[in-house]
Amino acid sequence: MKKQIITERIQKDMELFEQFTSTPGQGITRLPFTVEARGTVTLLSRRMKAAGLTVREDAAGNIYGRREGTDPGAPALVIGSHFDSVRYGGNFDGMAGIIVGLEVVRMLRDNNITLRNPIEVMGTHDEEGMRFGTGFFGTKAMMGEVDEDYLRRYQDADGVSIYDSMICYGLDPMCIKEAARDFNKEIAAFLEVHIEQGPILENAGRQLGLVNCIVGMQRCLVTVTGQPDHAGTTPMDMRVDAMDCASRAISGLSSWAAEAGGAGTVATCGFVQAAPNAMNIVAQEVVFSVDVRSKNQECIDRIIGNLRAELERVCEEKGASFTIAEKLRVPPAHLDEKLLGMLAESCDRLGFSYMHMPSGAGHDSLQIAPKIDTVMIFVPSKNGRSHCPVEWSEYSDLANAACVLYDTLVANYK
Amino acid sequence: MKKQIITERIQKDMELFEQFTSTPGQGITRLPFTVEARGTVTLLSRRMKAAGLTVREDAAGNIYGRREGTDPGAPALVIGSHFDSVRYGGNFDGMAGIIVGLEVVRMLRDNNITLRNPIEVMGTHDEEGMRFGTGFFGTKAMMGEVDEDYLRRYQDADGVSIYDSMICYGLDPMCIKEAARDFNKEIAAFLEVHIEQGPILENAGRQLGLVNCIVGMQRCLVTVTGQPDHAGTTPMDMRVDAMDCASRAISGLSSWAAEAGGAGTVATCGFVQAAPNAMNIVAQEVVFSVDVRSKNQECIDRIIGNLRAELERVCEEKGASFTIAEKLRVPPAHLDEKLLGMLAESCDRLGFSYMHMPSGAGHDSLQIAPKIDTVMIFVPSKNGRSHCPVEWSEYSDLANAACVLYDTLVANYK
Repeated sequence: MKKQIITERIQKDMELFEQFTSTPGQGITRLPFTVEARGTVTLLSRRMKAAGLTVREDAAGNIYGRREGTDPGAPALVIGSHFDSVRYGGNFDGMAGIIVGLEVVRMLRDNNITLRNPIEVMGTHDEEGMRFGTGFFGTKAMMGEVDEDYLRRYQDADGVSIYDSMICYGLDPMCIKEAARDFNKEIAAFLEVHIEQGPILENAGRQLGLVNCIVGMQRCLVTVTGQPDHAGTTPMDMRVDAMDCASRAISGLSSWAAEAGGAGTVATCGFVQAAPNAMNIVAQEVVFSVDVRSKNQECIDRIIGNLRAELERVCEEKGASFTIAEKLRVPPAHLDEKLLGMLAESCDRLGFSYMHMPSGAGHDSLQIAPKIDTVMIFVPSKNGRSHCPVEWSEYSDLANAACVLYDTLVANYK
Repeated sequence: MKKQIITERIQKDMELFEQFTSTPGQGITRLPFTVEARGTVTLLSRRMKAAGLTVREDAAGNIYGRREGTDPGAPALVIGSHFDSVRYGGNFDGMAGIIVGLEVVRMLRDNNITLRNPIEVMGTHDEEGMRFGTGFFGTKAMMGEVDEDYLRRYQDADGVSIYDSMICYGLDPMCIKEAARDFNKEIAAFLEVHIEQGPILENAGRQLGLVNCIVGMQRCLVTVTGQPDHAGTTPMDMRVDAMDCASRAISGLSSWAAEAGGAGTVATCGFVQAAPNAMNIVAQEVVFSVDVRSKNQECIDRIIGNLRAELERVCEEKGASFTIAEKLRVPPAHLDEKLLGMLAESCDRLGFSYMHMPSGAGHDSLQIAPKIDTVMIFVPSKNGRSHCPVEWSEYSDLANAACVLYDTLVANYK
């Protein structure tokens, strides 16, 4: 099959989904349980059916398109990624992995090949955690880790819980446990194609990245509580200024990450919210996020330890108080060596340049890897940019990933 | 006259005005050109008339109650403060000064004393600038500084201009210039009683503060621009993190203010807004406010200089850029020494403890002082709290201010 046809089909599908954004002209904003997510799933379902797949939406809003294999009892090879986005993000983060999976199925169909195992192309829901401050919702539900309490606990900025948002979206939150899969019986492997979202492949001039490790993540929300006072009449030494305390802690992150050093260690404060947030009132409360990642769990622990110590020091000094609420904690995940070997063989066979590399971003694979053989393929990101409207990967690079995946499946699972 | 009667009359009047809030049970929210402001003025007018005053509302919505003096050509002694409030504020900020003025007039009447000069008790409109992001509206209009263009330029959060809000409120915006007073001929002095809104008098155990200076203010919005990148995949040394830069600048403020030292020097960041403000995206932009005040303009300049130098340093280091937009700049105002001397003499005569002190907050007096002899009396604020529902001053302390003002007028203007 000509690579040009594969590239064109991928491009056509990718472009179809650009319309599902709540911020047209300012990139993709496709939050979970919104009308944009619903539109995406409806169209994805149509495209899956057109490729001959049997489609179902699970209780968490994940979408599956299944193609049966020759062995009726064989567990499925699941290929997928997420269909939600960050705010003002790009069209490739997530969707690219679903569309490549769909294309692999079409290639099998066009070549009249049926594998031993069934294939499921999967679009996962709410991987980004943008709306509710969580993350990996769809895959957590798939693993049976989400219950009713979880659905009620997390709320968006307007105070709407996951629970309530599910009802509007057309899902029954009481049935959330039905999203759980039996990993021992139903699934053989999880394969995720994703854009790199970083500059490494482009800088190294490689066509594909074979991901051998996903960094661990710890994400928390820090709340510093001070006292709201008049910004003109309250002397500096009588203030309990939450902004002062928070800024000292935030400004420490970059040096703590640099000290922890290497192993893909990064620390970020991307979110901040002050109250009453008025120019002439000393801040009563500042809430900020801290996101720490590393291949090495010890590096993560050290940075969180530094954060806590600095908060203790400045809050003691100023008379403020603080809490650290953990929102997410995932240990580093090592991907499956056997699958990595198969992919490397395919790359060699097809003549693609590749490199083994870690993933600095969390992915659905990070959640799934501890349960089942999992592997990821990275496609280069232009200028390493992602989570912004200029995010871009070449459609021909996505086609390379489809070819490698197709070749691997045919060579090993026929 | 027994102080207990004065205290009770002040308490009764003060409590009457607690009803005029759009946030009942959550403090006073009395924004300009609202039904709460209209109710306040209507009742104030009734109370002024009951004290024998001739009442008029000017073209800006300021209210005046006038008592003639024995010299028909003498300029007026204006005693007043503002009747609007911040959002979720207290009942004392502003109103206390109007009610004390009203009580002084009642004391003159009860003692059958007519001064040489007329007295005008004044309630000024929209000192806080809460609704339209301005400040000192009523006194600016009184000084002839507000024109039609100004009225159309400023809008509230719903897009309603001052111009349009005036019409609904029953004022003719085309007549705004009629609010201007002839300061050379019509006004002899401006005397403002106000709650301190800070902890200094309470801590020092003094009954009254004689304000000799109102601090100068400089307020600006800083915008730091970086680059939005994935918080997991972008190595620390490849980031242009606006939050990192902003937090370093913000965390410097308290030490720069402490170094500038004394002279009521304070620096505050009370407002911050990040974009895209997502936990897993390196901040592209952070906007934050800096509010610096001091009796000494050099201290203000030094802190703004430190801010600029630190922003230059960190933005250069990280590859970010920044702008500083000035929103407000008012030089320190020195109040009238002759009036201060008269007040000090009265305090001594009546046996009140007092101290000279600067005002850390801007007041109507800050606007008026450059034009005419102006003085302020501060009354202690409980725990120094203000701009919040728990704002409190003792009614007997307000009565002390009334007694001093009465004594000063009788001793010097009879």
